[in-house]
Amino acid sequence: MQNLLQNDDTIIALATPQGVGAIGVIRLSGKEAISITNKVFKGKDLSKQESHTIHFGTIRDEDNRILDEVLISLFIAPKSFTKENVVEISCHGSNFIIKQIIQLLIRKGARPAKPGEFTKRAFMNGQFDLAQAEAVADLINADTEAAHNAALNQMRGGFSGEIKRLREELIHFASMIELELDFGEEDVEFASRDDLKELVNKLQVVVNALIQSFDLGNVIKNGVPTVIAGKPNAGKSTLLNALLNEEKAIVSDIAGTTRDFIEDEIVIGGVAFRFIDTAGLRETTDAIEKIGVERTQAKMKTASMIIYLFDLSQVDIVEMNKEINVLENTGVPFLKVGNKLDKVDDALVEKLQHQHPDMLFLTAKEPEHVEELKNRILELVNLNKFKRGDTVVTNIRHYDSLLQTKNALMNVIEGIDNQVTNDFVAMDIRQALHYLGEITGEITTDDLLANIFSKFCIGK
Amino acid sequence: MQNLLQNDDTIIALATPQGVGAIGVIRLSGKEAISITNKVFKGKDLSKQESHTIHFGTIRDEDNRILDEVLISLFIAPKSFTKENVVEISCHGSNFIIKQIIQLLIRKGARPAKPGEFTKRAFMNGQFDLAQAEAVADLINADTEAAHNAALNQMRGGFSGEIKRLREELIHFASMIELELDFGEEDVEFASRDDLKELVNKLQVVVNALIQSFDLGNVIKNGVPTVIAGKPNAGKSTLLNALLNEEKAIVSDIAGTTRDFIEDEIVIGGVAFRFIDTAGLRETTDAIEKIGVERTQAKMKTASMIIYLFDLSQVDIVEMNKEINVLENTGVPFLKVGNKLDKVDDALVEKLQHQHPDMLFLTAKEPEHVEELKNRILELVNLNKFKRGDTVVTNIRHYDSLLQTKNALMNVIEGIDNQVTNDFVAMDIRQALHYLGEITGEITTDDLLANIFSKFCIGK
Repeated sequence: MQNLLQNDDTIIALATPQGVGAIGVIRLSGKEAISITNKVFKGKDLSKQESHTIHFGTIRDEDNRILDEVLISLFIAPKSFTKENVVEISCHGSNFIIKQIIQLLIRKGARPAKPGEFTKRAFMNGQFDLAQAEAVADLINADTEAAHNAALNQMRGGFSGEIKRLREELIHFASMIELELDFGEEDVEFASRDDLKELVNKLQVVVNALIQSFDLGNVIKNGVPTVIAGKPNAGKSTLLNALLNEEKAIVSDIAGTTRDFIEDEIVIGGVAFRFIDTAGLRETTDAIEKIGVERTQAKMKTASMIIYLFDLSQVDIVEMNKEINVLENTGVPFLKVGNKLDKVDDALVEKLQHQHPDMLFLTAKEPEHVEELKNRILELVNLNKFKRGDTVVTNIRHYDSLLQTKNALMNVIEGIDNQVTNDFVAMDIRQALHYLGEITGEITTDDLLANIFSKFCIGK
Repeated sequence: MQNLLQNDDTIIALATPQGVGAIGVIRLSGKEAISITNKVFKGKDLSKQESHTIHFGTIRDEDNRILDEVLISLFIAPKSFTKENVVEISCHGSNFIIKQIIQLLIRKGARPAKPGEFTKRAFMNGQFDLAQAEAVADLINADTEAAHNAALNQMRGGFSGEIKRLREELIHFASMIELELDFGEEDVEFASRDDLKELVNKLQVVVNALIQSFDLGNVIKNGVPTVIAGKPNAGKSTLLNALLNEEKAIVSDIAGTTRDFIEDEIVIGGVAFRFIDTAGLRETTDAIEKIGVERTQAKMKTASMIIYLFDLSQVDIVEMNKEINVLENTGVPFLKVGNKLDKVDDALVEKLQHQHPDMLFLTAKEPEHVEELKNRILELVNLNKFKRGDTVVTNIRHYDSLLQTKNALMNVIEGIDNQVTNDFVAMDIRQALHYLGEITGEITTDDLLANIFSKFCIGK
């Protein structure tokens, strides 16, 4: 009989992707994972085996008909991902077999897992904190080196460690203030206000740095939104294709792995650049015309960087300076590129180089030129700030909590400066503690958890 | 250093399907599988662990950067699928991670596996015979119960056992005859010609039964090619949709599994029915018109069964009998279906029922009627012959070898009847032995093996 308490259920799901492969892995977790599997497995008595061992045998249905020959991996609580008993069944990778085995085990007492339920159990059972659990999903979805590094660092507790250190320092102070409150009107000061201000200032620096890292984190996770702009015939699509083709060649070069190719996304130096659809920008001729300036600027402002192309063979210095002026007004980092270098003489290039030392001159069809462009793109997005192991906020939920923390900390400072009473200061500190605790899951609600784990895939 | 002999290589491939899932499993096989993995795995010394054990740790690249946290499953030769050392790396199911780990291990001395190479090694190392190896691929691709049963039976050696028994009996006789040859002109007869004929006759019965089972085996593996025919407006597409919709509902009902939905294929009672595109048949009005008869018949003859619809509301007895006559001339089993039962009175039905007791009367929109139709379809294809565990030939290569065996056996009988000399009889027996041996792989050529295993997926 299944217990009605959720965590006494034994859950089951396919852990590997759907589709035809050599093998599929079905995963069970829960008190009865081993005993349920034991009912249908012939080969050995699984209840008598040790953790972290593998057993060959057959899965048989109620009529003793063989469904498949399988390998069973056993993980006995608490030595498993979920800290519960876990069984992994490695079967032949046919959808028919996988379906039959899952249905059989459901008849024997398991129930289908909800999205993210394995990871949620791992979190509930203290395997890791909430930020680490969220990183598991990020890790699976990471398809660039930078995103992978950020997720792996977060999964291994880098980010959580930083948040926990902040919280501990605050908790220390909070307890001092609460102590003062206990003494009521006696006017004792266990926590020096100056020391508290100094601590809060220190915390603000760290919190602000984390908040600022989200710009970068977002870019790492979702790609750098990039606009390629310039007048018609400046060579925008040639350039984009040159960049994309390089990438396609790399992708198809890797035996045994493919990835969903996202149209108009390229990976340079481990970072994804996502090209914003600037259909209007790319097609219309009014980029700098009065009527178009506003629209162009609006589009450009949605980007994190702009690659702006000039056709060197059609250059008009006055016009060019107008265009650069528009670019500067967007406030977005941009790269000036003089294209069709092969069609102009050195004198013009020298002149322009003198006026715009940061302009890149190239011919979009030249592979070496494209390489140089990539280097400049990477420089512009300034990912050097991001080093492996650095803590970068990539999750919008964490970002929101950090903003709330920042506000609460500002209120603490303000309160001290205005000499408000201790109980108000204590309240603001508690607020800050609350928001920091939300990140790592020390503070949770059912809604929050449901919201987080429902975004996972089934089987994770 | 890698050895240049193929089987000293250590091969690597992703064993699970591509795409995003909770986990991916990378498989290595070969002498150095464990030592190569050991170079990049941090956690334990894998060379000191026992077979069939699982180990948690990290995979690190040359710069000691963590690529992922993984579980390593060890299978030490000969206790593995390939009978070589096998390592399975269970990592997070991100394409990025999988690619990185595979590339790292290739740098450390593994090489990418060719399609079917793991199974080929299992065959070469005597894990199973060729027919069993081929069944592994069939098993993975099986998406109906019947196909699954046939493949599983073959993989577990049912078919091979039957072939081997045949071969052994023949070998016994062959050796007798060869012995007689040694005695040359002395006219000794160790093997009674009558006994030999009796044996060969017995073998022929078994071989013929296997050959005949291929019709069924083909149907099991590839689906029953089925034509739904009848005059325009007889309700053919309504009927097809009624059958298909049922199926679609079943498919989407199964949580956690989907399968490629093949347009116009339905599974009834565990058997796939594949509808032949009879665009001409379904659309033109000339099914029974003189000009169309030939084409219609040709189309129908490519089917294994015909479902022929009559519109009861438009019935014309003379015309109907003409149509049935055409059907009978196809030689293909057919089912007469009187459609639109709801639109006619009982008298007509009774009259038709009297004339055609085997006609099924229905309304295509009635679910119970469709159920009854399914039962009749199953009866018609007569899959009752096929019981779980029965040996059914599903592989065209085996079918060809059996045909050759049959010919060789006929030559043996003919030779005995015509009292040809022993050396000719011996030659024919050897021929039969050769073809039987090809099935299980006792006789192989590199070409044959290459041809078989190249059809496997990579990672199997």
